[in-house]
Amino acid sequence: MPQAKRIVLASRPIGEPKASNFRIEDCAPPTPGEGQVLLRTIWLSLDPYMRGRMSEGPSYVPPVPVGGVMEAGTVCEVIASNNPAFAKGDIVLARAGWQTHALSDGKGLTKIDPRLAPISTAVGALGMPGMTAYTGLLDIGKPQPGETVVVAAASGAVGSAVGQIAKVKGARAVGIAGGKDKCDYVRKEFGFDACLDHRDPDLAVRLKDACPKGIDVYFENVGGAVFEAVFPLLNAFARVPVCGLIAHYNDTEAVVPKWAGSMMRAVLTKRLTIRGFIVSDFAARQADFLRDMSGWVREGKVKYKEFVTEGLESAPEAFIGLLKGANFGKQLVRVGPDRA
Amino acid sequence: MPQAKRIVLASRPIGEPKASNFRIEDCAPPTPGEGQVLLRTIWLSLDPYMRGRMSEGPSYVPPVPVGGVMEAGTVCEVIASNNPAFAKGDIVLARAGWQTHALSDGKGLTKIDPRLAPISTAVGALGMPGMTAYTGLLDIGKPQPGETVVVAAASGAVGSAVGQIAKVKGARAVGIAGGKDKCDYVRKEFGFDACLDHRDPDLAVRLKDACPKGIDVYFENVGGAVFEAVFPLLNAFARVPVCGLIAHYNDTEAVVPKWAGSMMRAVLTKRLTIRGFIVSDFAARQADFLRDMSGWVREGKVKYKEFVTEGLESAPEAFIGLLKGANFGKQLVRVGPDRA
Repeated sequence: MPQAKRIVLASRPIGEPKASNFRIEDCAPPTPGEGQVLLRTIWLSLDPYMRGRMSEGPSYVPPVPVGGVMEAGTVCEVIASNNPAFAKGDIVLARAGWQTHALSDGKGLTKIDPRLAPISTAVGALGMPGMTAYTGLLDIGKPQPGETVVVAAASGAVGSAVGQIAKVKGARAVGIAGGKDKCDYVRKEFGFDACLDHRDPDLAVRLKDACPKGIDVYFENVGGAVFEAVFPLLNAFARVPVCGLIAHYNDTEAVVPKWAGSMMRAVLTKRLTIRGFIVSDFAARQADFLRDMSGWVREGKVKYKEFVTEGLESAPEAFIGLLKGANFGKQLVRVGPDRA
Repeated sequence: MPQAKRIVLASRPIGEPKASNFRIEDCAPPTPGEGQVLLRTIWLSLDPYMRGRMSEGPSYVPPVPVGGVMEAGTVCEVIASNNPAFAKGDIVLARAGWQTHALSDGKGLTKIDPRLAPISTAVGALGMPGMTAYTGLLDIGKPQPGETVVVAAASGAVGSAVGQIAKVKGARAVGIAGGKDKCDYVRKEFGFDACLDHRDPDLAVRLKDACPKGIDVYFENVGGAVFEAVFPLLNAFARVPVCGLIAHYNDTEAVVPKWAGSMMRAVLTKRLTIRGFIVSDFAARQADFLRDMSGWVREGKVKYKEFVTEGLESAPEAFIGLLKGANFGKQLVRVGPDRA
């Protein structure tokens, strides 16, 4: 058995995380006790929410302790099992964190059938990011045929699914992404009606042009300048599912947005709905999601793009890049081969 | 037939409305044409939303034109009818505005049965303010037994109904009102669990004490300092129906609230729902409202308090006072006797 490795939180970042906030450690592979399985990580998923886990302060879950292994969703192989529910060779969705090996008592593990879809999709289009898009858009955003849906980070795991599901529902999808290559991809491959570059100094004007009938659903995953541009274009009865605020995760102090003084008045006069959520709030929708989304993927109605870095060691830089939009598609780290 | 009078918007207010923004005019009573009825106003309802109608700027309806009769809901008697659907002597709910007499083609008139309840309740507990409370609280706020509901302007037409309906639903009701007399009344007569004075410089501390389990529903009808105090106390999954912002109606520039910088982060991490509405958005709930609310009023579960000024001429000062909280209960103007 190879030596195991893990990445721990070395210190809490102030502002942007740096490589020095992480520390890679060699360790002995753990030995499964009674009822436990030993997992080998194949795919490690990197997602923006992890920035929140690195800091103290109020959030929906406690932060990773300093010295603790960074949390993450993973796709793993069971390489030893003392648990009758799992056999050596099973592929499972787990929350093994940023490490090559982990123990589990089996709770929270979900078996993945590698014949149905590439196993990496279990942390992507058919996993947490896909379900975040599905539930936030459909259960809060509720797009109607002919309505306009706007989403940022449109080449990413969540944003790309939001726009494509909006199209399935007959809505107009307008994406926002960083740079010409991503915008072209979002239009041509993901089939959005338009995609704008958030670095364009005329974003507000371009967005207005791209949304001639205003905005009915704004799926909020970034905040910052994008929401500044979106806010005046929201139609009466617009819905704003709030899923993330990646533009602010590295803020060291609260930024007062330009719309702040007129926010509640707009909520009132336009009858806006602004609602925060995390995917686990909609756990009851899991079966609906898997049925619909796997069907759409199979039919080519929803496509996905993966952005892979190699080796556990690459995770810190990849995560730092993710917060800056350096990724182009769902950010994954290949920690080990599909079969050992 | 007596001379008719009407009150028109003389000029648009800047900040607080003044008496000079209104003008009372004598006029000949109108003569009903074919299909029309002539209405005599008995009760004129004064409500905070009217401040919005006095100003230009984006809102859900166009403003009253300068020189136009001020809008209002009224309880009227039909004193002449060329419309087979209405007979002389009928009592109707109308939008006759700030005037003693008005014509109507019958559209939008609702007959009131004076045997069922005092006719003034048609613009109060059993009318628009009551239905605003009912739909905003139940359809957006959705209070559950044991949850805490907070509402300001708690001695007013909407706020008093919100807290009492919350109690009917098994929730804890905490009111905020201006001054000791109103607070005592809200507790003793309306049965709220607590009521705090918004003028208390320690409002934030008092509110925290009054809401030991945090706030699950905040029915927003004021904005300003009250929302500043409420915001940090909102629980995970709290709902904020936004019905009005009376503290801001006289603002001459946008005020950036203290919570602005952390608003969206709180929406996300606490999974808040903030939703604006006006009562007409829930027109389909009219029958439910009338059935439930008239039952609760009959059973003494929902009480109401009226604050009456005499004569059409009193309307401008009464309205200016309403915006400052000078009223104590539902603000009504008695324009004419119940029977001519």
